[in-house]
Amino acid sequence: MTHSVNLYSDNVSGVSPEIMAALAEANRGQAQPYGADDFSQKARQALSELFEHEVWVFPVSTGTAANALATSVLTPPYGAIYASQTAHIDVAECGATELFTGGAKIVLIASERGRIEADALESTIAKAGKGIPSRVQPAGLSLTQATERGTLYSLDQLRRLIDIGKRSALKIHMDGARFANAVAALKVKPADLTWRLGVDVLSFGLTKNGAMGVDAIVCFRQDMAEEMRYRQRRAGQVYSKMRYAAAQIVAYVKDGLWLSNAERANAMGRRLGEGLARVPGVKLDEPVEINQVFLSMEEPIIADMEKAGIGLGRRGDGHVRLVAAWSSTEAEIDTAIAAARAAATKGKAAA
Amino acid sequence: MTHSVNLYSDNVSGVSPEIMAALAEANRGQAQPYGADDFSQKARQALSELFEHEVWVFPVSTGTAANALATSVLTPPYGAIYASQTAHIDVAECGATELFTGGAKIVLIASERGRIEADALESTIAKAGKGIPSRVQPAGLSLTQATERGTLYSLDQLRRLIDIGKRSALKIHMDGARFANAVAALKVKPADLTWRLGVDVLSFGLTKNGAMGVDAIVCFRQDMAEEMRYRQRRAGQVYSKMRYAAAQIVAYVKDGLWLSNAERANAMGRRLGEGLARVPGVKLDEPVEINQVFLSMEEPIIADMEKAGIGLGRRGDGHVRLVAAWSSTEAEIDTAIAAARAAATKGKAAA
Amino acid sequence: MTHSVNLYSDNVSGVSPEIMAALAEANRGQAQPYGADDFSQKARQALSELFEHEVWVFPVSTGTAANALATSVLTPPYGAIYASQTAHIDVAECGATELFTGGAKIVLIASERGRIEADALESTIAKAGKGIPSRVQPAGLSLTQATERGTLYSLDQLRRLIDIGKRSALKIHMDGARFANAVAALKVKPADLTWRLGVDVLSFGLTKNGAMGVDAIVCFRQDMAEEMRYRQRRAGQVYSKMRYAAAQIVAYVKDGLWLSNAERANAMGRRLGEGLARVPGVKLDEPVEINQVFLSMEEPIIADMEKAGIGLGRRGDGHVRLVAAWSSTEAEIDTAIAAARAAATKGKAAA
Amino acid sequence: MTHSVNLYSDNVSGVSPEIMAALAEANRGQAQPYGADDFSQKARQALSELFEHEVWVFPVSTGTAANALATSVLTPPYGAIYASQTAHIDVAECGATELFTGGAKIVLIASERGRIEADALESTIAKAGKGIPSRVQPAGLSLTQATERGTLYSLDQLRRLIDIGKRSALKIHMDGARFANAVAALKVKPADLTWRLGVDVLSFGLTKNGAMGVDAIVCFRQDMAEEMRYRQRRAGQVYSKMRYAAAQIVAYVKDGLWLSNAERANAMGRRLGEGLARVPGVKLDEPVEINQVFLSMEEPIIADMEKAGIGLGRRGDGHVRLVAAWSSTEAEIDTAIAAARAAATKGKAAA
Repeated sequence: MTHSVNLYSDNVSGVSPEIMAALAEANRGQAQPYGADDFSQKARQALSELFEHEVWVFPVSTGTAANALATSVLTPPYGAIYASQTAHIDVAECGATELFTGGAKIVLIASERGRIEADALESTIAKAGKGIPSRVQPAGLSLTQATERGTLYSLDQLRRLIDIGKRSALKIHMDGARFANAVAALKVKPADLTWRLGVDVLSFGLTKNGAMGVDAIVCFRQDMAEEMRYRQRRAGQVYSKMRYAAAQIVAYVKDGLWLSNAERANAMGRRLGEGLARVPGVKLDEPVEINQVFLSMEEPIIADMEKAGIGLGRRGDGHVRLVAAWSSTEAEIDTAIAAARAAATKGKAAA
Repeated sequence: MTHSVNLYSDNVSGVSPEIMAALAEANRGQAQPYGADDFSQKARQALSELFEHEVWVFPVSTGTAANALATSVLTPPYGAIYASQTAHIDVAECGATELFTGGAKIVLIASERGRIEADALESTIAKAGKGIPSRVQPAGLSLTQATERGTLYSLDQLRRLIDIGKRSALKIHMDGARFANAVAALKVKPADLTWRLGVDVLSFGLTKNGAMGVDAIVCFRQDMAEEMRYRQRRAGQVYSKMRYAAAQIVAYVKDGLWLSNAERANAMGRRLGEGLARVPGVKLDEPVEINQVFLSMEEPIIADMEKAGIGLGRRGDGHVRLVAAWSSTEAEIDTAIAAARAAATKGKAAA
Repeated sequence: MTHSVNLYSDNVSGVSPEIMAALAEANRGQAQPYGADDFSQKARQALSELFEHEVWVFPVSTGTAANALATSVLTPPYGAIYASQTAHIDVAECGATELFTGGAKIVLIASERGRIEADALESTIAKAGKGIPSRVQPAGLSLTQATERGTLYSLDQLRRLIDIGKRSALKIHMDGARFANAVAALKVKPADLTWRLGVDVLSFGLTKNGAMGVDAIVCFRQDMAEEMRYRQRRAGQVYSKMRYAAAQIVAYVKDGLWLSNAERANAMGRRLGEGLARVPGVKLDEPVEINQVFLSMEEPIIADMEKAGIGLGRRGDGHVRLVAAWSSTEAEIDTAIAAARAAATKGKAAA
Repeated sequence: MTHSVNLYSDNVSGVSPEIMAALAEANRGQAQPYGADDFSQKARQALSELFEHEVWVFPVSTGTAANALATSVLTPPYGAIYASQTAHIDVAECGATELFTGGAKIVLIASERGRIEADALESTIAKAGKGIPSRVQPAGLSLTQATERGTLYSLDQLRRLIDIGKRSALKIHMDGARFANAVAALKVKPADLTWRLGVDVLSFGLTKNGAMGVDAIVCFRQDMAEEMRYRQRRAGQVYSKMRYAAAQIVAYVKDGLWLSNAERANAMGRRLGEGLARVPGVKLDEPVEINQVFLSMEEPIIADMEKAGIGLGRRGDGHVRLVAAWSSTEAEIDTAIAAARAAATKGKAAA
């Protein structure tokens, strides 16, 4: 399938030139395997600086691996991890969290536009039966920022949820598959979104935002990091030629590439959302806060866009998702909008 | 740590220029994620041709992931997988097979120079208690070719082991982390080493032999492949930008790159083994059949080689492993040999 | 804590005299262990007759073990098991299903008075993403009859749910912790509630209804039974002196003890529910269809009943559960009702 | 299959009259479920006195459950548990330890007559790769006392093994399926065999030695006990009518029943071993130190004994096991010996 413009997901995009250059650079000479190389040291140093905190970095090949390994250090097998009703760890990872935690339970909390509702979290924990052996025990909280619905938690919203969690001794995971998009949109520091709020471990996404195949688990606590060393290996997630993963990380944060890529993607997402929202027969399902656009469209419009070679993600019942990427251009975005508009106009003429 | 010549492992080597070029080529434009791209189709096609058999290909980020996922389709959780006493799946993967199989048991079979002894396999299976509920049930056989001791099974040896396994309905896995080296050394066809003997699933190693970060699970049976689709995703092992993994596979087998790389590594391993074996105070622990060289060395020789910047792998009690790679040069090999010889001479002079 | 009348649960009751006698009888002489005894044969025969179908019987020590082992033969680790929002397997077994299935996911379906809603089941399965690797795969349906809310599915309701499941190739489990109470209340044959509807495996509860410590997994399919042999042993659930478990099963179904016990418990439950419903300040949360009574009570009434030595189960926010057992007497039931009435009257007088 | 004398195992024996009486006694009235009953308190008190140490007691239905749950609090999923080559947890529990630990690895240590060799343990741990992520991490040591070969560790032998383990921070489990037989034979105090040596958790066997269906996990450490509460429930191992399990424990240790039963079994085992050893064509494979007798016998003798109705356990290649029980009588033992002697005489006559 070839698309004229592919907005199916941000992972249809390629690799940033800066990262391709870093891979070429890393390919000089030889290096010790499994992270005992200079690039891995530099990656850790770069992320420690970025987060203004000592961090332990575990590069893995996918966001699913990052999430599932991160949750595996939150909970015993008989524990509960609280997550939103749209959490990627629940609906889109084929049970990876259950595998890596040894069968912990993801407990879904009422959520709205992708955000966990604080009251619901509080009352669920209150009724969880802490200390009662027949009940899985409250252990972890997993928050996705930006959310799977393309929305953002404010700092205050995050703080409230994390505080509720911490009061019950939950450990906190942030699924940051689109962390860069969140930081860019909120104009905050990475530290403000993570450890300053109480986040213990972050899935720091790179691949969707310009890398080739690496996401990083970032641990803010040494005890979790110590355990992660073994779990990562046991999961088959320690690249032997780790330097190439590390080099991607270094290049990703160097000179703010990660943020400029995310800003571009967000801007293109906004342009896309605004343009489509003005097309008759199209309406936004969620406000566009990062690079993801969730819409309802009349079926003929969807079908016509597809025929026009616009890659989009059908979500059933007339819902679609379109996602701008770091590499999206205004021309591409406008082509997609024009295709929608043409379809809508044609439909009207026919009616 | 910088080495003048690094023979610590073949995974200290870089990426073949042909594969770097393929990555650059793959970076044009956009592509559907998770394997729905053209490169993934081509990779499957290329491996089907290479193996003269329809195959199902699952690219993963490490050899450990390939092995552990492959074993997970051999056995129920209450099953046994037979492996050699030096099997990588038992001693060097932090229990990945136990994780991905849900707690199956690796049962070690007496082995010699890395090769499972057929009689020992036969008698272990005979006493395994098939059908008796208190016993884990015979389920899989995992053979490493070339072995972890740098040796090779002959076709006849493999045939006998696999026939024993098949008589007890075992499913057969081949750990081919250095499959290319084995094919190059034995001068056989890939099909002859695999499905023609009864191998059901192969860990087809690429990374050590010139790729950046991909090994491929190659399934010769559709039923296992169907199950693997879910297990791979659940393991966090499906690259979202799969095209880059697939492009490495395509380039790896194109024009015989995989074989020429392996031939070079094998030749350099042979040169290294022959050269070192002639140094006083050094003796081969195993015959050199591929690119791995296992030796016993007097401690001062080891220490002097390390001081001279020769990267090597200490295995305790005076045992060391040196491994040539696809990128090793005669000059590098000769430098390593000269360093050993100098150390030995110095030692003699001192004595 | 001593109670004058204990209605906390039906498992506070003792063991039926017939079953005590059977244990004494089984204690003559010696017997082969692990089920190779005559009582185990008789138990299988008795249940095959009872169910009018060849069955495979696996006696275990708890209802949790029965449920979790039963679910473990419904699903691969990457599967989904559909259950009601009040399912015991989800909320009261500390994740046993997750342990024994290797991390399958229990997906909760909207339910009403403990019964899964057919439309919700149908639409959840329709959106489950069958064949899509990122999604856990539809595998099993677990139905509790009688439900955890003390209600019953009609045969038609069960048939509809099971038919929906079968259309998607789900395997069907029935949690029959109170199966006897359901059969007694519905006045149907055991076969009509199980395999004739398509149930594949049943947790056949005995302990609450007069046994000492045995529930039985009843498999209606040989393939599941074959796998269960190993899973049961691996779970540490094969009694070495199995004859005592089997003897309980034989005595339980002999001369209809199981049904007469359940009828008594149901009758006493009805009497309790009717009596309490007439007390001011008390109202039924659910219709009383078996031996369980779910109520809302004003706090002073609950407290006074407790002071009067009536064992009851607090469920939070003024909700309580009282359960009659096979051994409950009219006098006990009336004492409990009188205690409630006295508390209510006192409260009124005080007001 | 009916036997005139059944020495197949000690679990073919019945239940001690004292324990039957205790069950009848426990059957009066009602009791809170899941261990919140008086008998459970008494059981904990009785075992705390017996062991001269505060203990936490978890009654389970089988020895396999006791062992596998005990090992599950010794190790993370990426850990190693060291055990003898004949360990029940490795060869006779269908992988229960792998299930309950989430896939930890049982590493077998060279052993002799069922006893782990201290030097082999020490060197295995030394080479285990502590701190190296590719290796499963040293975590637990499981010792069976009396061993699976019917032999005993001396206190000094145990002390040495446990000291080796403790130096590497291993947690210590004792599989005491025949703990009573060991205590009776060694004439030591229970405390001397357990926590005084450093044992952290004990599988305290009752069933083989006169109980109906309960073994007890005895924890000497509160941290393990806290975790065990959830793991036991999750394993489906918390009897709802726990009073009957607890009552068996109380009766078992009351007035030294456990020891007098074990002494009888040991004496009968000795008598059996001595008698059979004098039969031509029969020889002891192991010294008889408790109630288990391991022998080699000529096949016609085995066959004749079986024809004579003597229950015995074939172990292949002419090896058999016979086990005396608490209920064995001198007459039974002598019948078995006479049957062997008659078979041997007949064979000689025929020759």
